[in-house]
Amino acid sequence: MNIDNLSVNAVRTLAVDAVQKANSGHPGMPLGAAPIAYELWAHHMNHNPKNPKWINRDRFILSAGHGSAMLYSLLHLFGYGLTLDDLKNFRQENSLTPGHPEYGHTVGVEATTGPLGAGMSFAVGMAMAEAHLAAIFNKEGYPVVDHYTFALGGDGCLMEGVSSEAFSLAGTLGLNKLIVLYDSNKITIEGSTDIAFTEDVQKRMEAFGFQTLTVEDGNNIAEIGKAIEAAKADKTRPSFITIKTHIGYASVKQDSASVHGEPLGVDNVVALKKALDYPKPEETFYVPDEVYSHIAELTAAGARAEDDWNKLFADYAAKFPDAKKLWDEYFAPVDADKLLADESFWAREEKAQATRASSGTMINRLAKIMPNLVGGSADLAPSNKTAMKGAGDFSRNNYAGKNLHYGIRELAMTGIVNGMILHGGLHVYCATFFVFADYMKPMMRLASLMKLPAIYVLTHDSIGVGEDGPTHEPIEQLAMLRAQPNINVFRPADLMETAAGWYLAATSKETPTVLVLTRQNLPQLAGSSKDALKGGYVVSEAAGEIAGILIASGSEVSLAIDAQAALAKENIFVRVVSMPCVDLFEQQSAEYKESVLPDKVRARVAIEAATDFGWQKYVGLDGATVTMKGFGASAPAATLFKKFGFTSENVVATFKKVAAR
Amino acid sequence: MNIDNLSVNAVRTLAVDAVQKANSGHPGMPLGAAPIAYELWAHHMNHNPKNPKWINRDRFILSAGHGSAMLYSLLHLFGYGLTLDDLKNFRQENSLTPGHPEYGHTVGVEATTGPLGAGMSFAVGMAMAEAHLAAIFNKEGYPVVDHYTFALGGDGCLMEGVSSEAFSLAGTLGLNKLIVLYDSNKITIEGSTDIAFTEDVQKRMEAFGFQTLTVEDGNNIAEIGKAIEAAKADKTRPSFITIKTHIGYASVKQDSASVHGEPLGVDNVVALKKALDYPKPEETFYVPDEVYSHIAELTAAGARAEDDWNKLFADYAAKFPDAKKLWDEYFAPVDADKLLADESFWAREEKAQATRASSGTMINRLAKIMPNLVGGSADLAPSNKTAMKGAGDFSRNNYAGKNLHYGIRELAMTGIVNGMILHGGLHVYCATFFVFADYMKPMMRLASLMKLPAIYVLTHDSIGVGEDGPTHEPIEQLAMLRAQPNINVFRPADLMETAAGWYLAATSKETPTVLVLTRQNLPQLAGSSKDALKGGYVVSEAAGEIAGILIASGSEVSLAIDAQAALAKENIFVRVVSMPCVDLFEQQSAEYKESVLPDKVRARVAIEAATDFGWQKYVGLDGATVTMKGFGASAPAATLFKKFGFTSENVVATFKKVAAR
Repeated sequence: MNIDNLSVNAVRTLAVDAVQKANSGHPGMPLGAAPIAYELWAHHMNHNPKNPKWINRDRFILSAGHGSAMLYSLLHLFGYGLTLDDLKNFRQENSLTPGHPEYGHTVGVEATTGPLGAGMSFAVGMAMAEAHLAAIFNKEGYPVVDHYTFALGGDGCLMEGVSSEAFSLAGTLGLNKLIVLYDSNKITIEGSTDIAFTEDVQKRMEAFGFQTLTVEDGNNIAEIGKAIEAAKADKTRPSFITIKTHIGYASVKQDSASVHGEPLGVDNVVALKKALDYPKPEETFYVPDEVYSHIAELTAAGARAEDDWNKLFADYAAKFPDAKKLWDEYFAPVDADKLLADESFWAREEKAQATRASSGTMINRLAKIMPNLVGGSADLAPSNKTAMKGAGDFSRNNYAGKNLHYGIRELAMTGIVNGMILHGGLHVYCATFFVFADYMKPMMRLASLMKLPAIYVLTHDSIGVGEDGPTHEPIEQLAMLRAQPNINVFRPADLMETAAGWYLAATSKETPTVLVLTRQNLPQLAGSSKDALKGGYVVSEAAGEIAGILIASGSEVSLAIDAQAALAKENIFVRVVSMPCVDLFEQQSAEYKESVLPDKVRARVAIEAATDFGWQKYVGLDGATVTMKGFGASAPAATLFKKFGFTSENVVATFKKVAAR
Repeated sequence: MNIDNLSVNAVRTLAVDAVQKANSGHPGMPLGAAPIAYELWAHHMNHNPKNPKWINRDRFILSAGHGSAMLYSLLHLFGYGLTLDDLKNFRQENSLTPGHPEYGHTVGVEATTGPLGAGMSFAVGMAMAEAHLAAIFNKEGYPVVDHYTFALGGDGCLMEGVSSEAFSLAGTLGLNKLIVLYDSNKITIEGSTDIAFTEDVQKRMEAFGFQTLTVEDGNNIAEIGKAIEAAKADKTRPSFITIKTHIGYASVKQDSASVHGEPLGVDNVVALKKALDYPKPEETFYVPDEVYSHIAELTAAGARAEDDWNKLFADYAAKFPDAKKLWDEYFAPVDADKLLADESFWAREEKAQATRASSGTMINRLAKIMPNLVGGSADLAPSNKTAMKGAGDFSRNNYAGKNLHYGIRELAMTGIVNGMILHGGLHVYCATFFVFADYMKPMMRLASLMKLPAIYVLTHDSIGVGEDGPTHEPIEQLAMLRAQPNINVFRPADLMETAAGWYLAATSKETPTVLVLTRQNLPQLAGSSKDALKGGYVVSEAAGEIAGILIASGSEVSLAIDAQAALAKENIFVRVVSMPCVDLFEQQSAEYKESVLPDKVRARVAIEAATDFGWQKYVGLDGATVTMKGFGASAPAATLFKKFGFTSENVVATFKKVAAR
């Protein structure tokens, strides 16, 4: 047997053995798509398994993440460090081979995938990052950023709307270094794709502005290779290659839905290996030596490619020292101590302003400090106040532009941010109205899982939206995001706290930051400070013996301070705690938390123009909340705040009731 | 001036006057799209404003909901009951003319829209409902269900992935009664669509299987009319009509981004009216009498059409009494009392089973009782256990099938369910893995806002997912949905509670129901009962003087009962409260709640294999939780439950700590 085909079958059989041993997993996709992935990795992808973090490597995203066993088999065979024992521990506790690929957990895995289509948006983001960095850094004769992004996915990835959103943008931007490989087997879990998906996928991709190519026989690696090279040859468009495959190829369950996500069965695995004419069919996890040695030769070429690039880069650094200095800034984290001490960054302004406007100020302050800050909005930049002045617009004619235009595509936008950050070298934000965090949620979750410091600028954060009404007024979104692990939801009360939020966002290494910002003007608070970085702090102390605590965030902090003053007139002295970030507050020491919210002070009222869901953590069974009880309404904002009880009078009355218990 | 053009301009000027008076709203879309909407309503849509609930009316959805002022102007002019005073109160408190159209609030508004693209998925759902009901009820010569669904949207609606998902399915299903009108003005908030959206939209729609038509001049109502008739003439495909318009037409801000969402200014409004050659340009809210009388003639035709249909239906009822009886069942609510007393529905099974399997049992029990139950999954029916046996598959060849195949499109699926329910006549469920509730969230929120009794069957509800790992293991989704207003999140502990969940879902009139179900087997509980309908109840009483309370839901209830037994061996007696539905429990009387969770019993532990977020409402500052602290992992389920502390030993230890405080 041809060594390439034998190697393809090694990928197949390792994957199937792993699934069978785990008695769990997805054999169908690896059996069908192994030739695609093998051919790509072996002959077309510029990668060096000895250094999986080489900056200029080609990226590969397995968007069809359920094909993880195939990816792990490749990572083993190509020498990324996964062992046969790792494959034998597929889907077991603490293994390096979890059910779906996990970024940061397994070396060589470029992205966490599994939710279908997500990887396609990541790939578009990676290609955008590559295009941008190339435009910033490349010099005549020195293409120091010059690599492809490959994504492999199936029918599910193409059905999910996130891929349509992302591909439409990729076509608009002419991201010619993006190459999508479509494992087209026409079978999904419920059966033939005819039941729900008869569209002409190629035609759709052409409509998006992709070059489209077809490989009729998914086992013909020569044809696959030709298509990949034709994709690379197109210098103006991204490419989409439809490769017709057979799910569960060569197994008794070939072309059936059941082979998607169920082990074949021990006997069927043996039969499969025989059908493939694979050596030692009764053995499991068997790889012929010639496969290892063949692939070792291939990867040696990858190592040489990196050597060449290292030389190129050394010359570049010598010839363009300013560019090298800038490069180092791009690829280093923000100096958190320096930023914390930077008075111009923290400079106060006294005029009342919406925190979205404060955020716009901070973005432009940061843009001067962080050359690698890029970002934009889902078509709401004028409302979100996200434009960086003088930074240019990212477009197919100007990849050096730093203001991104994601279009009205919140879900893909959020996935694209993940992809850009996964690529490396950039800090990336995106923006929309806070209520549309709903659309972003699936990709925000993946950011949290992957520990990416994505930045979300979400404005119009409450009934303060006013006339646009309940479809545009967030109620449950704060709770929704606070409930998600590993994400800092930051709702500042004024410019100082907004600065703290942006400081957090800029310096975060492993946690996404959500900045939740008002549409309407807010006063600057005398007591606001960098203590906001503790998540919760005493913004206004009780003027006498403490009778209770008012806890608030964002636009409701000034309301709490008003109520505090009104209560003080009646000789009732309460503390006001500003709680811009519950997540950060929870990370403080027990002593600090006790100092802010003493256990013995049980007369507590939380005030937030959102659902009360979650606030009982701080007000307990004996406190109360001034919050929204249902959806908002359409009317001027001031009318709504009154209508829904966000008045000093109501806070005072609520506190008195609590205190009287 | 031609009376039609004068009427178009009446729509335009009323809309602009409303926006100007409110000093808030969106003039751009109404000015550009008024000819489309007018021509449709005047000459092609079968509707009777005197009876906006006529079952066989053509449906119209304004997917571009920010064009609400145009819709309200139409509703006024066509006699749906909105007055000029209503228009003058646009976007004010308690008006019938809120910022975005609200279903159930304003007569004639078929759907709540605003979040772009959503309306497109609703329209697909309506067309599916029409096709299904037509297949069930129509007889030779008696097309009692025979109407079109029209949706009007703009660039934003087309950029959003939800519309791609929905249209791909619509094309697959050949929904020829669906006609989409694309208000193509090439301007969005950030400027020209060139910055983010240069795809060939028509070609994409062709790829989805639509007939595509183009009207070059959006002011040419004759051409618009011809295109609509050409769309109607296609008997095998849905149609998509691109109509090239000018945002802010005839105003000084025509073709600019700023006219999208800002009032024109008083002087510009006058100038606009002069440019349109509209009578009395200095007046506001002026409508020439001839416009009213012209439209009155048009709507008289609509009334006659309904009369004709009423006669047709009366003949049908006489000739096909069985069909008429079935019709009445379809269009009547479920008899809740009867279902509550139906022993076969509530029949227990003793064997341990996953609640997803119990749910499959209940679906098939209900299918016998509710002929108008339809539903399916986003390609996970075998896993979600959602198939109705013998009910057929809904497809372009069999619209009578009741098992829907939404494809791998969770967002559109959820929007389609909204549309099917909005249409009337059907109970509709959809399904996927619970973690993908993230994708469904935007459309679930609109279901809650619209008060639609949608049913969501969400299985694989915790780390019980096991090997598929953290991308597939819900953590924060329970909190996310519990935080949303007007939705019942129901997580049953066994078959009896699953029956209660399905009872709730089947009989709900204004609230969506989320059924949160396990992958893994659960024991049948001796104490489970219909009391689950109270949301929380004592499933296992303390065997002695009550020392505390364990509160749990779903798969953790049996764990709580195990811990209760272990504690009892040490003479510590605790109550176990099963809390399948926090939302329902909150609706109970204070007395009932006190009887379940006595205020004085403060030693409380909540147990749920999910985030603790929200549980402090019941355990307070003095209790504790046994919950997830972060994301899950990939390993066999039993391993994970142990790893993350869901063991009787840990619950016992946690309770003892709490009790010792």
